[in-house]
Amino acid sequence: MFESAEIGHSISKDDYAREEPVLRSRLLALQYALLAKSTFPVIIIVGGVDGAGKGETLNVLHEWMDPRHIVTTAFGEMSDEERDRPRMWRYWRALPPKGRIGILFGAWHTDPIVDRVTGKISEDELFRATERIVRLERMLVDEGALVLKFWFHLSKKAQKSRLNALEADPKTRWRIAESDWKHFKIYDKFRAVSERALRNTGTAHAPWTIVEGTDPNYRYLTVGRAIAEALERRLDEAVAAPEPPPVPMPPPPADGRTVLSTLDYSRTLPRKDYQRTLEKQQGRLNLLTRHKRFAERSVIAVFEGMDAAGKGGAIRRVVWGLDARQYRVIPIAAPTEEERAQPYLWRFWRHLPRLGRVTIFDRSWYGRVLVERVEPFASDAEWMRAYSEINDFEEQLSEAGGIVVKFWLTITPEEQLARFHAREASPFKSFKITPEDWRNRERAAEYDHAVCDMIERTNTAMAPWTVVPANDKYFARIKVIKTICERIDAVL
Amino acid sequence: MFESAEIGHSISKDDYAREEPVLRSRLLALQYALLAKSTFPVIIIVGGVDGAGKGETLNVLHEWMDPRHIVTTAFGEMSDEERDRPRMWRYWRALPPKGRIGILFGAWHTDPIVDRVTGKISEDELFRATERIVRLERMLVDEGALVLKFWFHLSKKAQKSRLNALEADPKTRWRIAESDWKHFKIYDKFRAVSERALRNTGTAHAPWTIVEGTDPNYRYLTVGRAIAEALERRLDEAVAAPEPPPVPMPPPPADGRTVLSTLDYSRTLPRKDYQRTLEKQQGRLNLLTRHKRFAERSVIAVFEGMDAAGKGGAIRRVVWGLDARQYRVIPIAAPTEEERAQPYLWRFWRHLPRLGRVTIFDRSWYGRVLVERVEPFASDAEWMRAYSEINDFEEQLSEAGGIVVKFWLTITPEEQLARFHAREASPFKSFKITPEDWRNRERAAEYDHAVCDMIERTNTAMAPWTVVPANDKYFARIKVIKTICERIDAVL
Repeated sequence: MFESAEIGHSISKDDYAREEPVLRSRLLALQYALLAKSTFPVIIIVGGVDGAGKGETLNVLHEWMDPRHIVTTAFGEMSDEERDRPRMWRYWRALPPKGRIGILFGAWHTDPIVDRVTGKISEDELFRATERIVRLERMLVDEGALVLKFWFHLSKKAQKSRLNALEADPKTRWRIAESDWKHFKIYDKFRAVSERALRNTGTAHAPWTIVEGTDPNYRYLTVGRAIAEALERRLDEAVAAPEPPPVPMPPPPADGRTVLSTLDYSRTLPRKDYQRTLEKQQGRLNLLTRHKRFAERSVIAVFEGMDAAGKGGAIRRVVWGLDARQYRVIPIAAPTEEERAQPYLWRFWRHLPRLGRVTIFDRSWYGRVLVERVEPFASDAEWMRAYSEINDFEEQLSEAGGIVVKFWLTITPEEQLARFHAREASPFKSFKITPEDWRNRERAAEYDHAVCDMIERTNTAMAPWTVVPANDKYFARIKVIKTICERIDAVL
Repeated sequence: MFESAEIGHSISKDDYAREEPVLRSRLLALQYALLAKSTFPVIIIVGGVDGAGKGETLNVLHEWMDPRHIVTTAFGEMSDEERDRPRMWRYWRALPPKGRIGILFGAWHTDPIVDRVTGKISEDELFRATERIVRLERMLVDEGALVLKFWFHLSKKAQKSRLNALEADPKTRWRIAESDWKHFKIYDKFRAVSERALRNTGTAHAPWTIVEGTDPNYRYLTVGRAIAEALERRLDEAVAAPEPPPVPMPPPPADGRTVLSTLDYSRTLPRKDYQRTLEKQQGRLNLLTRHKRFAERSVIAVFEGMDAAGKGGAIRRVVWGLDARQYRVIPIAAPTEEERAQPYLWRFWRHLPRLGRVTIFDRSWYGRVLVERVEPFASDAEWMRAYSEINDFEEQLSEAGGIVVKFWLTITPEEQLARFHAREASPFKSFKITPEDWRNRERAAEYDHAVCDMIERTNTAMAPWTVVPANDKYFARIKVIKTICERIDAVL
C-alpha cells in the first residue's frame, strides 16, 4: 500500500512554479462551478502519519481556493456534547452542504487506527469499525457526495529526519508535540495497522490517494490535481453517469399473508382497566427515566403508523409520564432547505438526544421506505439501500447507550374510514384530516407492502419493531407505554 | 412584588374540573392557529423558587398542548461548547422558530440572581446583567416574538412546608436535592435579590407574571390562562397593532463632510515593501494565534466595504497567516429558511467561534444597517434599533474573550468604475460583477450616508471600526492584517 510513497517523490522548483498558477486557477474555477450548481457536496478527508505536511497542504488548499466556501473541521478531543452521542455524530455535524467543499481533518478513520495501535480495541473491533466506515462512505456517495480521501505517508527514515528538522528550527518547533515522538516509537505498528485499515476502507467509490509527504511541492500538486480531476469529471455533464442496474425488488409474499393481515385486531381494554394501568405505567416510566443508571442511557422512540391510527394520542400518554425538561418530540414534516442540502439521515442525526434524555420521533427516517417509496419521491435504488443504512444508523444509536423503540400502529380499513369521517365532523379535529389522507388510503395495498418489507428488513435485536393493533385506543396506548418501560427496564 | 403571591391563592377541585377542559381545548386551538400562521415565535420563560411547582406546571402545559410543537430546554450545567462562547449563546441555540412555542426553563434570569445571592457578583454587576436582559427581550419582542415570563413564588413558610411534604413522601422524594435545602437557608436573601432583578426586567413588552406556587390548581390555571390570553390577543387581527411612532432619522452632516469624504485615498505601498511586510505580518499573526494565552481568546473579524473594494483579497491574505484547522470564513448571503424563522442576529450567533479559534465574516450583521436600510428590506424602526442591538451583541462577544475587529474598505467612485470594467473584461473575474453592483453604485450617496451612520453609532472601544482607504490594494491588505495583529497583541 505504501510502497510507492516511500520512493522519494519530488517536484523541482521550476516545475512547481510553472504548474502552480495553472492548477490554482483551475481549482478556483471548479470551486465556483460547484457552487453555482450546488447539486452535490465535496468531502475531503485528510489523515496520515505525523509530520507529513497535512496541515501545510490544507493551508495551501485554502490559499488556492476561495476559503469562504470551504468548511474545515479538525477533530481533536471530543466535547462533552459529542461524548454523549454516537461517535459519528461529530462527523455528521461537520458534513458540508451541497455546493461546498468540506475538509475533515482526522476524520472517522483516525480513532480506530489509533485505538488499535494503542491496544484499546482488538483486531475484530478494528475490522468492525472499518466496515462501518465503508458503509458510511458508500451512503454518502450514494447520496451524491464526492468523497476524496488523502493519506499522508512518510517512510520511517523520512519521518525521523523531518521531525528532527522541524524541532531544530525555532520557527517550526511548536509543530512538534510530545505525542509525535511517542507515535514515532510505534511507527512500525502504526504502519501495519493503517495499512490494514486503508485496505479495508479503500473502495471503488471512495478510494484512497496515498501522498508521500517528504517534498512539499509534490504533496501540493498531488492533492491539488486529484481534487481538480475528480471535480472536473464530476461536473462534466458529458461524462454520463452509468445507468444504475435495475434493483431486484422484494416480491409480496406468495400466499398474501403478512404480519399485518394476520394480526389480531380484536384486542381491547376496558376503560376502567385502562385508567388504572395507564397511571401505573406512567409512574413506572417516570421512575425508570430518573434511575441513576438512566444517566448513561437515552431513549429514541419512533412512532410510525397508518393515518388516524392514534400516533399522536399514544405519544401524549407516553410524555405525560416524563418530565418536560427531559424529552423532545420531533414531528417530521417536509425537510427544510438546510436539510435538503444534506444526506437524508442528517436531519435525524441533528436531533439525537444526549444521554439521560428521551427523543420521540413522530414519523421518522422510515419515511424513506414508506411514503418516499410509494409516492415515489425516492428511486428504487434509494429506498432499497435505505434498509441497511437505517440498520447501521440504529446500531450506532444503540451502541452509544440509546434504547431504540419502534412502533407501527395499525388499524383495519373499516376503522380508519370511521375515524376519517369522525374527524371531518369534529370542528376540533378537522385540521387533522387532509386530501392526502384520502389519497394514501386509496394506496393502502402499496403501503401494506412497503410496511411489511420495512418490518422484515429493519426488525433487529437492537432496535425491534412493535406492531400495535390500534383499533382499540386504550389497548394500543397501554401496549406502547408498557413496551417502552420494559425496554428501559431490561437494560438498567 | 411578591405580596400578592403570599396570600394563599387556591382553586377548588370543582372549579378546576369545570375550567380545565375549556382552557385546554382553547390552548390547543390557539397553538394550532399559531402554527398555521407561523409568523412569530412564543418564548415562555419559567423561573422562581425551588419547590414551587415549576416542573409540574411545565408537564401540564405539555399535556394540554401538542408537545410536538413545543421546544423545551432546561438549562443546567453548561457544556464545554457553551462555556467557550458568550453566556447568551446557549439561549440563542434554544430559541423557537416562528410558529412554535419554546419553553426556557431557568433562562437568562437565573444565573445573575444566583450569582448575586452567592456573592459571586456585585450589586452593580447584577444591575448590568439585568439591563442586558432587558435589551435582549426588547430585541426579541421587536423581532416579533411573544415573550411570556412566569416567576413561581412561595412564601418562606409555604416553601418550608412544601419541601417537608415532598421529602416525607417516597414517591416525590427524588424531587428534593440537597441544594434545595441550602437555597432555603438563604431564602430571605434570594427573595430580596429576585425582587430587584424582577423589577429591573419586568417591562411593558415582556412583563412578569408572578405565580403563587402553593396550590397546583391555581398554578396551572394562572399560567394556562395567561398564555391563552396573550396568544389570543396576538393572533386576533382585529386588535390592530398601534401605529409605531415615526423614527427620528439621523440627518447627514450639515457641511457634507464625513469620515469617508475626508479620508486620504492617495496612500500607497510599493510592491517590494508589500511582499516583505505581508510575509512578516502573516508570520506574526501565526505566532500570535498559537500563543498559549490565545487559547482563552477568539477573533471575530468583520469585513464590510464597497463593492470591488477588495474584501475577498484582504481576507485571503489574512487567512494565509492562519492554520486552516483554526479558522472559518463565513460568507453572508441571503438567509436560509431556518434562519428566516429567527431574529436576524441568530444566524451570526450560530457561527460564533469557540475559544482559540478565528471566525471571519465576509459581510456581516451590518447588512441590517446597510443594504437592508437602503433597499429598504428593513423598516426605519428596525434598522434604527439595530445599532444598539449590534453594540450589545459585540459587547457580549468581547466579554467572552472575543477580539472583535471590524473593517470598512472604501474606494473612490473612479477607482470603483475602473475595477467594475476590469472585472467585466476578465473571463476569470466576470462572475464577481452583477447588475446589482451597478445598481448599488447608483445609490452611492444613500450608502455613504448609511456607512457614516453605522461607523458613528457602532464604533465602540471594545469593537472599533477601522476604515481602510483601499484604492491601493497593497496598502489596504497590509493595513488589515497589521490591525488584526495589533489587536491580538494588545490583549495577550
